[in-house]
Amino acid sequence: MAKRSTRSGLLGELSAEFAGTMILILFGCGVVAQVVAGGALTDPPGGLGDHDSIAWAWGLGVTLGVYVAARLSGAHLNPAVTLALATFRGFPWSKVAPYFLAQTAGAFVAALLVRWNYTEALAKADPGHTTKTQTVFSTLPANGNPALPVHEWGAFRDQVIGTAILLLLIMAITDMLNTPPGANLAPFIIGLVVVAIGMAWGTNAGYAINPARDFGPRLASFITGYNGAWRDQYGNLYFWVPIVGPLVGGLLGAGLYKAFVGRFLPSAEPEPPGRVPAPED
Amino acid sequence: MAKRSTRSGLLGELSAEFAGTMILILFGCGVVAQVVAGGALTDPPGGLGDHDSIAWAWGLGVTLGVYVAARLSGAHLNPAVTLALATFRGFPWSKVAPYFLAQTAGAFVAALLVRWNYTEALAKADPGHTTKTQTVFSTLPANGNPALPVHEWGAFRDQVIGTAILLLLIMAITDMLNTPPGANLAPFIIGLVVVAIGMAWGTNAGYAINPARDFGPRLASFITGYNGAWRDQYGNLYFWVPIVGPLVGGLLGAGLYKAFVGRFLPSAEPEPPGRVPAPED
Amino acid sequence: MAKRSTRSGLLGELSAEFAGTMILILFGCGVVAQVVAGGALTDPPGGLGDHDSIAWAWGLGVTLGVYVAARLSGAHLNPAVTLALATFRGFPWSKVAPYFLAQTAGAFVAALLVRWNYTEALAKADPGHTTKTQTVFSTLPANGNPALPVHEWGAFRDQVIGTAILLLLIMAITDMLNTPPGANLAPFIIGLVVVAIGMAWGTNAGYAINPARDFGPRLASFITGYNGAWRDQYGNLYFWVPIVGPLVGGLLGAGLYKAFVGRFLPSAEPEPPGRVPAPED
Amino acid sequence: MAKRSTRSGLLGELSAEFAGTMILILFGCGVVAQVVAGGALTDPPGGLGDHDSIAWAWGLGVTLGVYVAARLSGAHLNPAVTLALATFRGFPWSKVAPYFLAQTAGAFVAALLVRWNYTEALAKADPGHTTKTQTVFSTLPANGNPALPVHEWGAFRDQVIGTAILLLLIMAITDMLNTPPGANLAPFIIGLVVVAIGMAWGTNAGYAINPARDFGPRLASFITGYNGAWRDQYGNLYFWVPIVGPLVGGLLGAGLYKAFVGRFLPSAEPEPPGRVPAPED
Repeated sequence: MAKRSTRSGLLGELSAEFAGTMILILFGCGVVAQVVAGGALTDPPGGLGDHDSIAWAWGLGVTLGVYVAARLSGAHLNPAVTLALATFRGFPWSKVAPYFLAQTAGAFVAALLVRWNYTEALAKADPGHTTKTQTVFSTLPANGNPALPVHEWGAFRDQVIGTAILLLLIMAITDMLNTPPGANLAPFIIGLVVVAIGMAWGTNAGYAINPARDFGPRLASFITGYNGAWRDQYGNLYFWVPIVGPLVGGLLGAGLYKAFVGRFLPSAEPEPPGRVPAPED
Repeated sequence: MAKRSTRSGLLGELSAEFAGTMILILFGCGVVAQVVAGGALTDPPGGLGDHDSIAWAWGLGVTLGVYVAARLSGAHLNPAVTLALATFRGFPWSKVAPYFLAQTAGAFVAALLVRWNYTEALAKADPGHTTKTQTVFSTLPANGNPALPVHEWGAFRDQVIGTAILLLLIMAITDMLNTPPGANLAPFIIGLVVVAIGMAWGTNAGYAINPARDFGPRLASFITGYNGAWRDQYGNLYFWVPIVGPLVGGLLGAGLYKAFVGRFLPSAEPEPPGRVPAPED
Repeated sequence: MAKRSTRSGLLGELSAEFAGTMILILFGCGVVAQVVAGGALTDPPGGLGDHDSIAWAWGLGVTLGVYVAARLSGAHLNPAVTLALATFRGFPWSKVAPYFLAQTAGAFVAALLVRWNYTEALAKADPGHTTKTQTVFSTLPANGNPALPVHEWGAFRDQVIGTAILLLLIMAITDMLNTPPGANLAPFIIGLVVVAIGMAWGTNAGYAINPARDFGPRLASFITGYNGAWRDQYGNLYFWVPIVGPLVGGLLGAGLYKAFVGRFLPSAEPEPPGRVPAPED
Repeated sequence: MAKRSTRSGLLGELSAEFAGTMILILFGCGVVAQVVAGGALTDPPGGLGDHDSIAWAWGLGVTLGVYVAARLSGAHLNPAVTLALATFRGFPWSKVAPYFLAQTAGAFVAALLVRWNYTEALAKADPGHTTKTQTVFSTLPANGNPALPVHEWGAFRDQVIGTAILLLLIMAITDMLNTPPGANLAPFIIGLVVVAIGMAWGTNAGYAINPARDFGPRLASFITGYNGAWRDQYGNLYFWVPIVGPLVGGLLGAGLYKAFVGRFLPSAEPEPPGRVPAPED
């Protein structure tokens, strides 16, 4: 969708990336705050949602963030997407770093809003602001669960695979030479990708699959009392895993799409006569 | 969608707002009655749904209420939406007060129907008609949970943010200059906004995000035995929070959409030749 | 959609109603068998779904049954729908009784298949074939729960309201003069109506909202060992409630749609030039 | 959709079948690994999803796999689909065996990736690699639950019925003479078929309904430490059931669609003038 992005200038694009990623994180960090902090205080615990609602709200956050930003910026909302589109679909390299910054800033501001709105719940459920509620903001190996022995490299493997799945599917669902959803409903289907990744690939590393989604809120939590934000439950420096893993995995997945499907598609198919341009053309 | 609203006269518009908001509340208050009152009586408790079904049914209620009212009134179903559209999209100010009344009346009647149908369950689960089942009808800080120390101002903050998210997204999803969903599926996507807000922003104040949704059923509960309806679990006057908070938040969110996205969109884009008018044009 | 129904003759219409209702009940009775009988045997209990999956699978069953039957018969799948369309939209009265029979026969055969496939689970979870698993096939007041004091007339009230909601919404979603979903996705949205009714209006009477859905499977259970099928948990004759209630409620809801919305819609709006015929035209 | 499949040659078709089935299994086996192995280690257990998320992620996996493969291969992703399309819709018999192989290979590779990513969780939750976590990869009668006395033939019956439902619906949803979903959203609706089958027909045999989905991962588990992969919890040879049952059931369901609906549809309806070709034409 990058071709649409030039009309309003870079400022509009960055503003859209900022707002779209902010929406994504308002839902994403919001739902984890509701389930993990708010839900710990209900009687019985768990009265405000569960892992299913976490998966749905993250995915719906993607859908809704994309509707906000799609026209202006193409709605990447994720540095792994920006990098893959620059590598495989001609997105200008000069915009890659500005997009990264705008995405991370949107995630950072959204996480501060979640931090503010859930002040009371976080203080009551986890007064020390430990790894118990760190997952509201940023990911940990095995979601901080010491009973599952996954460490940095297991989490890295998981992030590479998970983000590869994400980008393989984004490339498929936005490829006009394949059979993408019409009626401007690709944002809905892409949200479902993230719902499904949350349900199936969220065990080992909390499915960051997006460096901005992880780093922005991690920084927000660090400056608001989460002193251990950069480390995992074993004390190891961890913040780099959900940055590097997704960037590598995204390239891998986009490349696999090209290898398995893209190279077999007709490269310059003439439009059938009378074809109706879809709204996203 | 306000432009469609004049054909049948104000009576048709108000009738549609009444019916659409009635549908919304039949599902919204209905699902909370089912989960909170009906579910308290199953063995084991919780056999008729959970917070996830509450989030889904509220959102689906929005979707379905919008399909009822969209053609005649534009399907605001929410004074916060009406106020924001009057401020930012030229909805006539002369209709604002009538819309408020029709929306509140629809919510009031629907809540009476829920009250009637769930008479036995409410009487059995909460004979005193206390804050335990007040949430079937209207919202409370922390959903009435004393273990989460949120009071009026925490709830007010939450309602401002939650409704700002709602209106930012409604403005995006209905903006023909952005990339809205086609095939008349915007009501479905707008329902998903409310599903996601319920999952991520329902901890501190029960996500009223709609003054009519809260005041109409609160009044219905008050006249049918809920003597404490105007106050929260601490005895403080509370009913104003889910009225004022959403009105303020809605303006804020619609303004943020304009600031982040709307002002960068082309203001008078010529139609591409051959473009197919979407059904909502 | 009834206008499409004449091309292939009544036999095709009835065959489609049979097959569509069969699909609905294969999912509907199937999911209750899975949750209530199969789920009672897992360790811990509840391992095969919950009330949320019941609501979703019934709704998806409607969506999928409609896709099977829509072209040939208009996909009523429910005598309450057929009666309301005959009364309000000119569906031929001569076809009403044959449709009723085909719908009930489809539901009956589907329930026998569920009965057969879940033989082992039903025998193990409820050897006496009592009201404990009667809800797999047909509805009971309060879903058979003695802790909720709802009897025939409470259930009747509930069925009138629930089916009124259903028909009000079906009339709205299929009204070409309103703003119905396009791209042939009305079956999906109508399925969501049933999902939401299951979540919000399933406490008092198990949301039959369809006489064929209830009577066909009730008969199938009776002839396969459920001797108490015609009575409720109190021993009262009950089978008439989910027949009469939905027929009355459906008429009420369709009438309310006309009163609140339909009569205000333009009755003979000329097509805008260049309008694309939707596939359902 | 098979008609589109010739442009890029058989290699492209097989590559698409491989990739699409791989995506399906990455979500399908992934979600069972997350819920069954990962979820067994949370405190309390069950913190990473439940049977509902299993049903959703399998269905979404189908939707997403279809979007990957649809243009090149028609996205069968399932030998039961390929066999039924060859029998009823003219899919070339010469391609049936290659499709089977590509589908099974894609499922096999995806299962190895799940096996690798969930190494730690599987080793911790089930050190002996027994039937307790065999269901991550392949199906068992009653999902391995000894409290439900279903054996090979009960599971066979279940697989015949379940796959008959699947194919009856796939034939309906992709039949251009019926009323299929437009805007390229058939993959979404077909995914919902699998969601609903998981919710309603997953008790007796884990809803394989796809020989490649079952055999590929079974083989992958066998060569990575699951020595009992070919047998059920009673020690009986079981792997043939989810191969033969679906192939038989698929033919049955596709035939029933023809008998109940297909033969009544107009066989050579002229296009209405001005009809807009849907993107899938």
